[in-house]
Amino acid sequence: MRATFPGKTNKVAGPFGAELGRLRGLVEEALPGYLSPGACRAPSPLREAMEYSLMAGGKRVRPVLLLSAGKAVGGGEGELLPFACAVEFVHTYSLIHDDLPAMDDDDFRRGKPTSHKVFGEGTAILAGDALLTEAFRIMAESETASAAPGRAVRAIADIARAAGAEGMAGGQQMDLSAAPGVSTPSSVDEIELRKTAALLASCARVGGILGGGTPGQIDALGEFGTRFGLLFQVTDDILDETGSFEEMGKGIAKDRARGKWTYPVAYGLEAAGARAETLAREALEKIALFRGEADPLRELVRMVQDRRS
Amino acid sequence: MRATFPGKTNKVAGPFGAELGRLRGLVEEALPGYLSPGACRAPSPLREAMEYSLMAGGKRVRPVLLLSAGKAVGGGEGELLPFACAVEFVHTYSLIHDDLPAMDDDDFRRGKPTSHKVFGEGTAILAGDALLTEAFRIMAESETASAAPGRAVRAIADIARAAGAEGMAGGQQMDLSAAPGVSTPSSVDEIELRKTAALLASCARVGGILGGGTPGQIDALGEFGTRFGLLFQVTDDILDETGSFEEMGKGIAKDRARGKWTYPVAYGLEAAGARAETLAREALEKIALFRGEADPLRELVRMVQDRRS
Repeated sequence: MRATFPGKTNKVAGPFGAELGRLRGLVEEALPGYLSPGACRAPSPLREAMEYSLMAGGKRVRPVLLLSAGKAVGGGEGELLPFACAVEFVHTYSLIHDDLPAMDDDDFRRGKPTSHKVFGEGTAILAGDALLTEAFRIMAESETASAAPGRAVRAIADIARAAGAEGMAGGQQMDLSAAPGVSTPSSVDEIELRKTAALLASCARVGGILGGGTPGQIDALGEFGTRFGLLFQVTDDILDETGSFEEMGKGIAKDRARGKWTYPVAYGLEAAGARAETLAREALEKIALFRGEADPLRELVRMVQDRRS
Repeated sequence: MRATFPGKTNKVAGPFGAELGRLRGLVEEALPGYLSPGACRAPSPLREAMEYSLMAGGKRVRPVLLLSAGKAVGGGEGELLPFACAVEFVHTYSLIHDDLPAMDDDDFRRGKPTSHKVFGEGTAILAGDALLTEAFRIMAESETASAAPGRAVRAIADIARAAGAEGMAGGQQMDLSAAPGVSTPSSVDEIELRKTAALLASCARVGGILGGGTPGQIDALGEFGTRFGLLFQVTDDILDETGSFEEMGKGIAKDRARGKWTYPVAYGLEAAGARAETLAREALEKIALFRGEADPLRELVRMVQDRRS
């Protein structure tokens, strides 16, 4: 069964699914503007390569999480949106580079040929580089950066640390360097924390920072985001193992052949399912200090859980 | 003849060479700290790959330019230094990615094997990604970002725009896409503007921004930086053609075989020499509004010119 994350083509699942779908729509509408010729004079075919991957129909989980977290502390959508879009730029760059022959060597992503298959390796590398760089341009040129520069630099620092050598890029390195067969469960945990959870946790914290949350609220959002990120990853891994995502079949076969460890491989499917339950419960506990304003965050947890059903 | 840019091993050329050498020394001393385990928990071999290229003995022209420009408007070295180092991170990432097999496919850089030859392509790609990301972390976590966040976000935006799709990454794309034999002189000009001059101009402007320069001073520094950047590139190209940089011989032969156009190829060596003279004169004119406080900038121009003698 395919995931029912809300979007233009999927039906809405829970009571706040409509709100998540609306936030996702805001992101879809805003994203292309940051690459328009008026915003950025990218030469061809660099612009086409950036647009190809950016508009390839992702679930926009990271921007929706950032928006939901920011709104939970009373932030305005206008001040949150550029940062939400910037995080999607960062995520898209990471997918392009992860798919390269020197990395995971994937020919397809979301049912479409990967960037290097369409544009060649050189342009794919540059499209990733440029998306990452433009993410920081978008944040630093935003109205928020003019109106509240102190919050903006904190947000930029948080995202850079989460995406950099100790976060996402570091996790990808550990994944790349993991020798087949000698991985341990604890190394799987650390790779997932860095590769996936770090940036998702940052999205939640940055929403809190930009929305003017208290230090306690920002910490709680970050703790929520870490659990949510790990839940997201372990759910993906379970879907991989049980083959529910048909387009991922090829990647799984390759991962197995290479002896790569995912959480279900390291701990078994049953333990992975139990862990998902625990992570979901802990995530919800972390935001118990919020009332109804955090319901979209709770809905996000429910939707990731529903992907397994 | 090798360049006489000041450093630990080269003799100082002009009256302000000592000052440029001192600024370069500040950068050399500060750079490794930003990658220390206390600053950034990068896993192995990512840290080693980042350090390998960062500490490979570059001339540090960009950081020295940023520091010199900032001091010309009265900025303090402490507030300028993190941004100067961050720009060297950006420059280093671009060298690692430019050298990849899918790009220029170079085996040696500054007499040492390139990153992908030592660490493999996957790690080299990630080391570049991480250096670029950490550059923004360094800027956004700097004391300047706390004390003067408005200046910091302007500086971050300027560097991101210069390094991104309409600047350095865009120039690299144009270089990559240039069909052999169909390049025109004007396309050579645009590639040089984007690929080299954009980031150097940004260094000069960012020094002015962080140092608290007036809009007029910041503009003048940017105009200076553009000319300086073009002068730097055309001088490099002339040295390539005349073979003065022995270690570049291999790259030139390859460029020629691929039919790549440099300024001397497009216009001829004599015209290139005349253009260098014009650019140097214009660069100096742009900073005529400054007095002795801009002498290190003037010395930078002289040093680049001296490389041709």
